[in-house]
Amino acid sequence: MSKHLVKFLPDDISLTVETGTNVLRAASIAGIEIKSVCGGKGSCGRCAIKVQQGQVRLEGGNRSKKMKEQGLNLACQTFIEGDVVIEVPKDSRLEEHQVVLENENHKVLAESELDLLSGYEFKPLCRKVQLTLEPPTLTENASDLTRLQAELRQKTACKELMVELPVLQQLAEALRQEDWKVTATLACMNGITEIVQVEPGHVQNDGYGLAVDIGTTTVVVYVVDLATGDLVDSRGTYNKQARYGDDVISRMIHAGEKNGLDDLRKAVIGSINELIDKLLEKNNISPDDVHVAVTAGNTTMAHLLLGLPPKYIRLEPYIPTATELPPVKARLLGININPEAWVLSFPAVASYVGGDIVAGVLAAKMAKVEMMTLFIDIGTNGEIVLGNNEFLISCACSAGPAFEGGGITFGMRAMGGAIERVSIDPETFDVSLMIIGNEKPIGICGSGLIDCMAKLHRVGLIDRTGQFFRDKDTPRLRKSEDGWEYVLAWAEESGVDKDVVITEADIKNLLRSKGAVFAGIQSLLKSMQLDVNMIEKIIIAGGFGNYLNVDDAVQIGLLPDVDRDRYEFMGNTSVKGAKLALLSQDAYKECKELGHLMTYLELSAGTTFMDEFVSATFIPHTDLTLFPSLNKDEQGKEVK
Amino acid sequence: MSKHLVKFLPDDISLTVETGTNVLRAASIAGIEIKSVCGGKGSCGRCAIKVQQGQVRLEGGNRSKKMKEQGLNLACQTFIEGDVVIEVPKDSRLEEHQVVLENENHKVLAESELDLLSGYEFKPLCRKVQLTLEPPTLTENASDLTRLQAELRQKTACKELMVELPVLQQLAEALRQEDWKVTATLACMNGITEIVQVEPGHVQNDGYGLAVDIGTTTVVVYVVDLATGDLVDSRGTYNKQARYGDDVISRMIHAGEKNGLDDLRKAVIGSINELIDKLLEKNNISPDDVHVAVTAGNTTMAHLLLGLPPKYIRLEPYIPTATELPPVKARLLGININPEAWVLSFPAVASYVGGDIVAGVLAAKMAKVEMMTLFIDIGTNGEIVLGNNEFLISCACSAGPAFEGGGITFGMRAMGGAIERVSIDPETFDVSLMIIGNEKPIGICGSGLIDCMAKLHRVGLIDRTGQFFRDKDTPRLRKSEDGWEYVLAWAEESGVDKDVVITEADIKNLLRSKGAVFAGIQSLLKSMQLDVNMIEKIIIAGGFGNYLNVDDAVQIGLLPDVDRDRYEFMGNTSVKGAKLALLSQDAYKECKELGHLMTYLELSAGTTFMDEFVSATFIPHTDLTLFPSLNKDEQGKEVK
Repeated sequence: MSKHLVKFLPDDISLTVETGTNVLRAASIAGIEIKSVCGGKGSCGRCAIKVQQGQVRLEGGNRSKKMKEQGLNLACQTFIEGDVVIEVPKDSRLEEHQVVLENENHKVLAESELDLLSGYEFKPLCRKVQLTLEPPTLTENASDLTRLQAELRQKTACKELMVELPVLQQLAEALRQEDWKVTATLACMNGITEIVQVEPGHVQNDGYGLAVDIGTTTVVVYVVDLATGDLVDSRGTYNKQARYGDDVISRMIHAGEKNGLDDLRKAVIGSINELIDKLLEKNNISPDDVHVAVTAGNTTMAHLLLGLPPKYIRLEPYIPTATELPPVKARLLGININPEAWVLSFPAVASYVGGDIVAGVLAAKMAKVEMMTLFIDIGTNGEIVLGNNEFLISCACSAGPAFEGGGITFGMRAMGGAIERVSIDPETFDVSLMIIGNEKPIGICGSGLIDCMAKLHRVGLIDRTGQFFRDKDTPRLRKSEDGWEYVLAWAEESGVDKDVVITEADIKNLLRSKGAVFAGIQSLLKSMQLDVNMIEKIIIAGGFGNYLNVDDAVQIGLLPDVDRDRYEFMGNTSVKGAKLALLSQDAYKECKELGHLMTYLELSAGTTFMDEFVSATFIPHTDLTLFPSLNKDEQGKEVK
Repeated sequence: MSKHLVKFLPDDISLTVETGTNVLRAASIAGIEIKSVCGGKGSCGRCAIKVQQGQVRLEGGNRSKKMKEQGLNLACQTFIEGDVVIEVPKDSRLEEHQVVLENENHKVLAESELDLLSGYEFKPLCRKVQLTLEPPTLTENASDLTRLQAELRQKTACKELMVELPVLQQLAEALRQEDWKVTATLACMNGITEIVQVEPGHVQNDGYGLAVDIGTTTVVVYVVDLATGDLVDSRGTYNKQARYGDDVISRMIHAGEKNGLDDLRKAVIGSINELIDKLLEKNNISPDDVHVAVTAGNTTMAHLLLGLPPKYIRLEPYIPTATELPPVKARLLGININPEAWVLSFPAVASYVGGDIVAGVLAAKMAKVEMMTLFIDIGTNGEIVLGNNEFLISCACSAGPAFEGGGITFGMRAMGGAIERVSIDPETFDVSLMIIGNEKPIGICGSGLIDCMAKLHRVGLIDRTGQFFRDKDTPRLRKSEDGWEYVLAWAEESGVDKDVVITEADIKNLLRSKGAVFAGIQSLLKSMQLDVNMIEKIIIAGGFGNYLNVDDAVQIGLLPDVDRDRYEFMGNTSVKGAKLALLSQDAYKECKELGHLMTYLELSAGTTFMDEFVSATFIPHTDLTLFPSLNKDEQGKEVK
């Protein structure tokens, strides 16, 4: 096979690839992350690139008129057949800084984290112990290990002290280097204590741990000081698995291909390592001083991290290899911390209620309070947990990608240029927008979509089924070749040189998404014979919640119509739960119990969910008694 | 650096080495095992080779006159400086078939092995369980692992069932391949049960285990059927570490050199793997069906196997890194069996009483009986254990290499051509010999030396200090340039074309060796305030015992003068103990306790041993009351 030189601009990175390689793949090898929602199927149109020079073969794929005009091709549909020069526009790139973290106001977070430990003893999974051993003699000639263990037993009350080979291999020199003064690092989990490091001398630092949230879209790493429990720093980035598809399903399919599982494993570990490397360098921490990592992710992400095939998660009856995942040494996973550090995975409940949700329930302390709580994490899947200290029941509903901008004409994630709030004048039907980053609008994010639908309905532009009233007199409402649409921003105001619109098809997609989530909530309530009014607290988890307006969400029938002060936004509960487990051995133990304790309601096994879904694909619902505040507040405008 | 081509004959193996490489090293890289007692120091004269062609640089070293005449050089002192052709004579090679195993009469061994388990329940460390699982459904949707664990719990009464990542990675497919019929292999040790393999379908074989004795000189592997406890086959070979020196001390020194520890680790694992490969192929067993290995070796061998530096074993106060060694997966060690198999190491008592001795004590069931027992394993070190079910005390005495043929002019190991029995006519002082393999004599092995010394003394050729009576009238007694010597075989009868002799220096060496062992026995007895007559059983362990004549040994004062029927030869107790642990979880548990239970008496800490040693370097001893049978039987010939 012949090889060709590919040069990427403006990065000025060159590499050699085999003939027939597509540009998406070549860019990925070169470390250039190109957006790909569809996973290289040619359908999402996000991976636009420009062939500046050289021979390529183009296949089909979904290119917009504008792309054609600008001479842009889809990276996944462009196959290299000679030496080429490829330009990757900024818009096609996944950029790290686009990941919104919560620690923008660092101080506030650090303080709020203090609450996290309430109810738990501060007892981190790892700690350092300084020792001064008696040197051996001809008559006191116990082995190095026996000597160390005896002293540790005396100092810590730990009985069984395990040690693995790599630590043992260094032990003799470590003990003697500073004349029998040493610092031992102990990992305590599952009732077992292991000596994971022995350093010569009395080391001053107390070691660090990582809390890691592995999301389908983003990966977030917290560096935590295990002596104080303080958050040292945090950082997020895109999950590099995105190159194999934006959603979980595309990745599961890729995992079934040759080397696919390994691709995905390496990609997510690459993302985690990138964050770790930067965080540790910035904070001047040696990788060897990081002694434990707790990860939380959905069941598929947890499987991919450990190289477990997700095949049967995808196929009915949706069975994961394991919900309780064994601890694995960092050296086996290739994570850039102390090779002897344990990497722990939060247990899952089922294929579609994963460790991220268990971490969330732990962080929210749902199992510790009497208050009936509803926990909702909305993404491509909506995961919902209902319960209190007496029971916990969970389900997952396929919300589709609409809330994350997928399947929506101008849909995008919540980042600079995204419309997040919409106001529509009820008389003129004119619009004013709020844009993230005060940039020119280039698309609309999930919270913007919800707001937009609420407003379109409130001003009477759409009916309860999401259809436009065709007779409204405004130039913004028009029929294009793809059907009816409403113009949110004219081309001259927008950042994309064309009209930014929301179509009737977009609205129908959104209706299905919100319908699925609400139907999930109703199914859980019905299974426990509870009523929506009995919910005393609703926790909104996940990045989506950062921008969500509860009134809008209630108005379109996405969230239950209860007192707004029962709602609580907890942000990234997955990483918070991981941090809690890191800092409290009891919390870690509890999370393993939670995995067993939480019941899983499989929505596809029965008719309740389907009935509820049909009723919920209206604005706000077929049963208006479920939304009493709407009837009261907006009686005049309620569309029958 | 320039490179040269080296060709070895008659093997016809060629390889390229850097200029200045010595021939011993080059041969080792080529897989040709050349004898080297001194570890390449040029002193032992065993690594004779012939440079047939090409340029070499010769350094010094100890070459015999005969070697010079025959144009032989020392491989370790011959440095390659151009393309060369090297001939390696048969005598310079370590050959596998020279290792004497006990299984020459296979049937007898297999039967005798039945006794091994007496007192223990047959409960191997690994076993297979056949299962038929209920397939999952939408409502019975537990994870694969949970499903498997639940069924195993029901079938086996094991509660905690661990699993490591590699088994988990294969689990989903293994369960589904034969429609939820599977065979799980469980490893049960230390109270923990681990699923180490899951095979699709109901597998018929019950899996195998290995018992491995890692001696400084030889490595022996038993393949054991874990379903029946039967010995399937066994095999021994030289420990390839011999290329870095014949004795433990040379190897410890090599371990301190650059990459030395890794050299030694790889060498012993190479020896083990060679045996395993041949045994499994011959018996048509797949490496994947070998699920556990139990190894026993002296403390240094155990350290080298695991890559633990032996440096402080050698230096006073002689401290090993660990006496209790952690189980390690075969994949981590690189042993050619199922990668998930555990490789277990017998615990040691101290630096010079290792896991081989603990295995021996276990096999001899010393800790289970009231009978006061003395256990003796004689090699370069004599390891001695005294005790019963109430106490166990052990020591190690440096016997030196004489019993293994080291430091003796014509000393050699017990192999073809070695003199093993000597008769001397009390009138003519003429000699008749018994030679191993009925070959022409080329040297004398340890048991031959002991017999020779006993006979020389009995016929009045040497006095109690080992000095020849210079006035005896026989051509066999003569003074050479190296001192007085006695001719055992004339050049024309020998296999080496020269007179095979025993020198006064040889006899003094042997006296020191036997003195050290007897002084060790006396020191143990005195420490417990016991008398030699209180010993009810004496177990002679190790290959040396295979050829040892007790009467001879008592006669020279090597072994205690008690009723001969109290003596028992147990052969390779190290591999027998390993086999016992393999077949009985209780025995494995007990061996770990034995490691703690056995006291270690450090002979160099005190004056008892030195006093005893001085008294014991006479034939048979300064205190003749210790040897009553000698006074009785041979009163007439006793030399005052």
